[in-house]
Amino acid sequence: MTNPTAAMLVIGDEILSGRTREANAHYAAGQLGRLGIDLREIRVVPDDHAVIVDALNALRAAHTHVLTSGGIGPTHDDITADAVAGAFGVGVDVRDDARAALQAAVGTGRVLTPEHLRMARIPHGADLIVNPISGAPGFSIGNVHVMAGVPAIFVAMLDALLPTLEAGLPVRSRELRFDVGEGRIAAPLRELALELPDLNIGSYPFHDGMVFGTNIVVRGTDASRIDQAIERLEATRRAVA
Amino acid sequence: MTNPTAAMLVIGDEILSGRTREANAHYAAGQLGRLGIDLREIRVVPDDHAVIVDALNALRAAHTHVLTSGGIGPTHDDITADAVAGAFGVGVDVRDDARAALQAAVGTGRVLTPEHLRMARIPHGADLIVNPISGAPGFSIGNVHVMAGVPAIFVAMLDALLPTLEAGLPVRSRELRFDVGEGRIAAPLRELALELPDLNIGSYPFHDGMVFGTNIVVRGTDASRIDQAIERLEATRRAVA
Repeated sequence: MTNPTAAMLVIGDEILSGRTREANAHYAAGQLGRLGIDLREIRVVPDDHAVIVDALNALRAAHTHVLTSGGIGPTHDDITADAVAGAFGVGVDVRDDARAALQAAVGTGRVLTPEHLRMARIPHGADLIVNPISGAPGFSIGNVHVMAGVPAIFVAMLDALLPTLEAGLPVRSRELRFDVGEGRIAAPLRELALELPDLNIGSYPFHDGMVFGTNIVVRGTDASRIDQAIERLEATRRAVA
Repeated sequence: MTNPTAAMLVIGDEILSGRTREANAHYAAGQLGRLGIDLREIRVVPDDHAVIVDALNALRAAHTHVLTSGGIGPTHDDITADAVAGAFGVGVDVRDDARAALQAAVGTGRVLTPEHLRMARIPHGADLIVNPISGAPGFSIGNVHVMAGVPAIFVAMLDALLPTLEAGLPVRSRELRFDVGEGRIAAPLRELALELPDLNIGSYPFHDGMVFGTNIVVRGTDASRIDQAIERLEATRRAVA
């Protein structure tokens, strides 16, 4: 598959400390797959300027698209906008369109606080990503797309972003369950994988109490090739039953 | 905090394709925190030899401990043992103690298949991590600890591994809920974070339907300093109520 690739950078001490279970990467993975964008890495890093800058520079050089989540709120530990500006070597300032989005969210009668204005600080040259829930926008700069960590807001921002991204051929998948451990089917699977190198054939063992079984997932962009692989796997399943 | 640091490398196409929700890093994060081991990065990579080798070499140079999950089964897409051997520049072979562990798991009367023996392939110089559930062992080499991806097996292996790791001062935390958005408390929080630089003060907004609120988490190794921070935060909470 020569589809565009993506990486996701999750920014937040709360994931690494075990306080919070990361909740956005799984949604992003599914949505990117549907668009034929091949998610190749997820990286979780702390609220640390230098670490974020290094990770951004590594990931944006290696992938077509980089998504980030987290660290765009008003508090001292929200340092993503500054780190993104640092990675791109540009300045960061309160911007009129971001300020207007916050003003609309809080109501025209209210004066914006310094904390609101902190969320309107956008790296120079970025485009805003709309936040229909709480106003404070995300932004895109180069191939880096910066979104909130709060799941409801992340989902809304990603759904706004995705139609603007360079997509690929949609990846299809079919799955077959075997009620035997993967050792029993490893040899025919290996043969099939060698024979159909354009497909990705994954073997996922499960262990449910005392029962061992295996799910085989076939992924690719050509539905007829996937059907061909599944027919072969069904024959294997009859043989080991 | 000058506690030992750790990184976790999750190996598996199934996470990146969106098929499977990653389930082990959150457990590992909590357990490491209790031991005073500071988890600094989680990285999810595909079943790709070169990518795994590069990630392992970056992470093992940067951290006291590296945990991996996934890719140690018997099928063609289980390439972790070879990638770890590649990263360390050592060979990998079927080993007697690993073979014995698999033989014990399948029963002494049964002949081990080539697929069983594939799971007994261990990089030279590694120590085994016991797998009480399905036999196929994990292993430790240098500061890299290789475990299964199936959650029940990962948990059992990690619990066996943790007492052997260099630990640090246990990290304690206390949490306080504010029924206001984080913008309302950002200024006193910033002041507090500057005043108590030995503590990690995290601000986590939540959005529950139409209600915005903020959880403040104070983390550190000195309980009395944490109590001091919480008292200050309680005063802030009374002031904004």
